[in-house]
Amino acid sequence: MTDAETTREITVGELSEGQILRGILDRLPPSAAPVGPGDDAAVLAVPDGRVVATTDTLVHGPDFRLAWSSPHDLGFKAAAVNLADVAAMGARPIALLVALAMPDATPVSFVRGFADGLAAACAELAPDCAVEGGDLTVSDTLTIAVTALGSLDGRAPVRRSGARVGDGVYVIGELGPAARGIDLLFRRFRDADGAPVALTAPARAALGSADAHALSRQLAPRPPIAEALRAADAGATAMMDISDGLALDATRMADASDVTISLDSASLGDDPVLALGGGEDHGFLVTFPADAEPLGRRIGTVETRGEEAITVDGRAWTGRTGWDPYRDWDAGRG
Amino acid sequence: MTDAETTREITVGELSEGQILRGILDRLPPSAAPVGPGDDAAVLAVPDGRVVATTDTLVHGPDFRLAWSSPHDLGFKAAAVNLADVAAMGARPIALLVALAMPDATPVSFVRGFADGLAAACAELAPDCAVEGGDLTVSDTLTIAVTALGSLDGRAPVRRSGARVGDGVYVIGELGPAARGIDLLFRRFRDADGAPVALTAPARAALGSADAHALSRQLAPRPPIAEALRAADAGATAMMDISDGLALDATRMADASDVTISLDSASLGDDPVLALGGGEDHGFLVTFPADAEPLGRRIGTVETRGEEAITVDGRAWTGRTGWDPYRDWDAGRG
Repeated sequence: MTDAETTREITVGELSEGQILRGILDRLPPSAAPVGPGDDAAVLAVPDGRVVATTDTLVHGPDFRLAWSSPHDLGFKAAAVNLADVAAMGARPIALLVALAMPDATPVSFVRGFADGLAAACAELAPDCAVEGGDLTVSDTLTIAVTALGSLDGRAPVRRSGARVGDGVYVIGELGPAARGIDLLFRRFRDADGAPVALTAPARAALGSADAHALSRQLAPRPPIAEALRAADAGATAMMDISDGLALDATRMADASDVTISLDSASLGDDPVLALGGGEDHGFLVTFPADAEPLGRRIGTVETRGEEAITVDGRAWTGRTGWDPYRDWDAGRG
Repeated sequence: MTDAETTREITVGELSEGQILRGILDRLPPSAAPVGPGDDAAVLAVPDGRVVATTDTLVHGPDFRLAWSSPHDLGFKAAAVNLADVAAMGARPIALLVALAMPDATPVSFVRGFADGLAAACAELAPDCAVEGGDLTVSDTLTIAVTALGSLDGRAPVRRSGARVGDGVYVIGELGPAARGIDLLFRRFRDADGAPVALTAPARAALGSADAHALSRQLAPRPPIAEALRAADAGATAMMDISDGLALDATRMADASDVTISLDSASLGDDPVLALGGGEDHGFLVTFPADAEPLGRRIGTVETRGEEAITVDGRAWTGRTGWDPYRDWDAGRG
């Protein structure tokens, strides 16, 4: 075998589905399920007879660009955003199903890095969670569709419709870094035509600490899963993953609960506009009754439904409210 | 409004995610779950404390072509292939989560037809099943990722590893029509460059009944879900959805069970080669012990593991074994 042959990257198009799958499963923690990967379907234990289920897809272009995200980042993010949705119901994540559609020129090293990112997210955020199933297929567009399942362990589900007048409004987790991270990428890592420019290791190392933190939270968000479960145990009346921006997600909670959520801009950090309009940090918006021992930072109060779903410092919010992929995506592919 | 404006097709790119979602949910049967669509995650009841979960993705190009599949076909197929995997474990399908990634030029009528196909598949194949969640995003490549969940209702899961020496080998459902259908499409509905040619209603109406049946089973397969559950109740020792071809799927069952599956070509219909090598009918391969009352057609016997995982008429099978997307896809996009 020549040097060129040994150093050339093997692609997924040169391997069978079974070979690719083994390369993924070997890097993941072993299944603890009654039936794990390898059969027609997995069988998972949910002792209280209820399962929480959610799905979210990341598509190359609108949701991520390979010029910016490492395979590890992508695996971490694909797991994290789904784990956050399970935890937002007050459920403990127990399983991921991961569908990966890849161009056949995708290097096998991508698959390995992606699997390592999935494993890292489970280990860091949801140690009871393993990858219990999935699907591999070919696509012109790299697409990652993850389903997360969770167990309520006897808890009542914490719905977005449960906020009650007089409850305090809290945020668990950060507001803003992920949006600051995407702004940084759009401003500094695109060429004159708007195409993404590779985020190299030296370029990343040259960033200041605030920028580096923002970038890290955009590329691999850290939802505080364990705190969300503690919030459910502490009597949260409503909870949501803040994925699309605080203003938009608070509007959804207010509409579902038929209340007005009154926010105090002084509690929203040094950039309230970014906190209200930027999404993707995957913190949690939570309401607690006055007699509960709340978690997180108080940012407002639940009031009787008025004309507006949310107010900021007593007035309607007219700024940017968050991200809608069909409205906001500019078709600048990367 | 001019005539041109009223007749022009509205695209998903002109609507918000919420508007598209309402257009889908309005066409689906109402949720019967403790928490249905609209929150961060759904909550589903699985009374015996175990949930069965599987995911499968359909990608434009390798898995379907819009020139051939109607939106209704696609919704039906996306549901059916996942329902089959749940039923193959002996579980009753209770919920689908549907992630749809669409180019923004996709007409809204596509989404409506797709939702109608999902609803039709649930109604016909798994009446206890509803769409309980999902995700919409933008993609250059139309991609459908479905997760199906099921309840074992106290049954032991029927695994592919359970076949025992002396068991009879049975097939429930058809073998071959779906493969005959894809052959027909490749032979008669492609141009000289291999690009798909639209399958028009008149062209479809002009087909003979066998061809029309084959086409229908390729584009919208009908897995016999209820019979699979009856097979589990009748004492099936092993069961699998036949998705990639009988020879390949029987090999998987034989390897998982550490047995040899001996097949009799005379039991495989008038085209045993097609029955062995063609996939996508989504019937079920089932083994029953001698004292059970079996369902389906007997096609062979489980024997002590020999050199070969499967034999046909006592000899090794050297013909086509089934479909592997990475090995077999010819990159002819359509």
